[in-house]
Amino acid sequence: MNASKLNIDCMAVVGIGLIGGSAAAALRNARVVRKVIGVSRNPATAQRALELGLIDKVVSLTDVVQAELILLAMPVGSTYEVLKAIEPNLLPSTIITDVGSVKQSVIDDARRALGKKINQFVAAHPIAGAETSGPDAADVNLFRQRPVVISPLPENSSQVLEIVNQLWQSCGGVIRHLDAHTHDAIYAAVSHLPHALAFAYMAQIAQSENADLKLQLAGSGFRDFTRIAAGLPEMWCDILFSNKEALLTDLGISIQYLQTLEQMIINNDKPSVHALFKSAAAVRQHWSLNKGLDSHQDGSTLASNCFPRTQ
Amino acid sequence: MNASKLNIDCMAVVGIGLIGGSAAAALRNARVVRKVIGVSRNPATAQRALELGLIDKVVSLTDVVQAELILLAMPVGSTYEVLKAIEPNLLPSTIITDVGSVKQSVIDDARRALGKKINQFVAAHPIAGAETSGPDAADVNLFRQRPVVISPLPENSSQVLEIVNQLWQSCGGVIRHLDAHTHDAIYAAVSHLPHALAFAYMAQIAQSENADLKLQLAGSGFRDFTRIAAGLPEMWCDILFSNKEALLTDLGISIQYLQTLEQMIINNDKPSVHALFKSAAAVRQHWSLNKGLDSHQDGSTLASNCFPRTQ
Repeated sequence: MNASKLNIDCMAVVGIGLIGGSAAAALRNARVVRKVIGVSRNPATAQRALELGLIDKVVSLTDVVQAELILLAMPVGSTYEVLKAIEPNLLPSTIITDVGSVKQSVIDDARRALGKKINQFVAAHPIAGAETSGPDAADVNLFRQRPVVISPLPENSSQVLEIVNQLWQSCGGVIRHLDAHTHDAIYAAVSHLPHALAFAYMAQIAQSENADLKLQLAGSGFRDFTRIAAGLPEMWCDILFSNKEALLTDLGISIQYLQTLEQMIINNDKPSVHALFKSAAAVRQHWSLNKGLDSHQDGSTLASNCFPRTQ
Repeated sequence: MNASKLNIDCMAVVGIGLIGGSAAAALRNARVVRKVIGVSRNPATAQRALELGLIDKVVSLTDVVQAELILLAMPVGSTYEVLKAIEPNLLPSTIITDVGSVKQSVIDDARRALGKKINQFVAAHPIAGAETSGPDAADVNLFRQRPVVISPLPENSSQVLEIVNQLWQSCGGVIRHLDAHTHDAIYAAVSHLPHALAFAYMAQIAQSENADLKLQLAGSGFRDFTRIAAGLPEMWCDILFSNKEALLTDLGISIQYLQTLEQMIINNDKPSVHALFKSAAAVRQHWSLNKGLDSHQDGSTLASNCFPRTQ
């Protein structure tokens, strides 16, 4: 492998779901990878990934050491066990990288499993996802213009880091280096906490009186607010517990905000509620303008484009 | 006006924002309304609605009694004051209907303002919205295939109700009759509570450490979860306080769910968190399949459609 012209003869993907499958598709599409071998706990998933052309061959976990680059895309809670199985036959030139939504616990597990070979492991997190999962959800454009956070270790050589940078740039990602602690604090706030809130809210509605009628009459605000509650429960449970401390801090703060809001409403304190909402809306509107991410979610277009003039 | 063939010569819209403007556009497009007169607190809004062709004439509030049908599309908190101004010159044949997100407080205000003329008022709520607002956001298709809840009063004649039914059907809406109490309990749960949660969460992030970095690195889950926090603070404050009792009940339950989840995480009780998330995800996935509302939010398509086969 050469950093100046990324050309990987064989890549292994451990876990061929949405992220692993999309990365395989994007890297092959970018002609960065020639052959992809894949591992899955579930034989049907591996078979489906093969049928879809996401991977060329299904292999067992210990066989991934054939590859020049090993991409870990299974749940973060399996990191230690997977690396422990790979470590004995790992060649010194092989690079291992991951896609986990938490970084400190993954790095800790990698250190325990790889020992002195930790320099071969680069911790990464592409910021992309969908409410869909599995190899059928794989999308060659999933990482296009999305941030990819890399948390370099002191042991990583600049050459190894450059290869992983190029790998994600080939998928269309925009690289950002952040230490694991900062990464985990940020994603506790902007990803893990909203998932916890959305799952809890969705459970509340599902278990409430008139739940069927509520679901029947819910609109587009409900749809967007709860989209992430359709995520894989096992995966999100795994992620949340892997970032437990940061999540608990933010969840505690959320509860305080809601108790404060509750008290404002009880007190009929409209000015305070209005001020809270106004500061929230201003930041969200500015974010949306900056990111250009919001679309008119219903597929309809705006008056300025399509309103039929009757003049 | 004739229920069997809806044909309104002149309609008045009080409040020409997203909802009022869209209704005017949709009704004119359906050739149900010939002339639309409009009122706005804000002269610039009225002028813009005129420029966009949403209304034919800007009038003062007391002039809306010229119209056969008066559509109230201003904030729900202004219902009493608006109807009180209209009532003295209201003709017996005129129908008034509204679009408010709460129904009991609107009906109470209408009763107080209209007295014996309450039979002329039909309480309605089209379930449609967007993160955009104002006349420029008006959309002729906003109500297409969307539920429109009507809360009939004992005083409403079947002929008057039928006209309002047809009015919304002409906009593409699907009529549903619900009493005001049930309506308010349902929309506290599926709309007002999520708005409260989203505004509170967004304020928490905006006021937290590293807020700029968090916003920079937030992804599509954050985008969808917080979309409704970009809503109009004044309008949502108004709605929430107009449905205070039902909202406080649900907000209290939300806080309990989050405290329970917090305790499960503190206790390392993964099975309970997993069970909670699983029940939430199952309901949300089923809802999405039923409603067919979720799109792949990034504009990208799925592997099964577009994955480039390299065979």
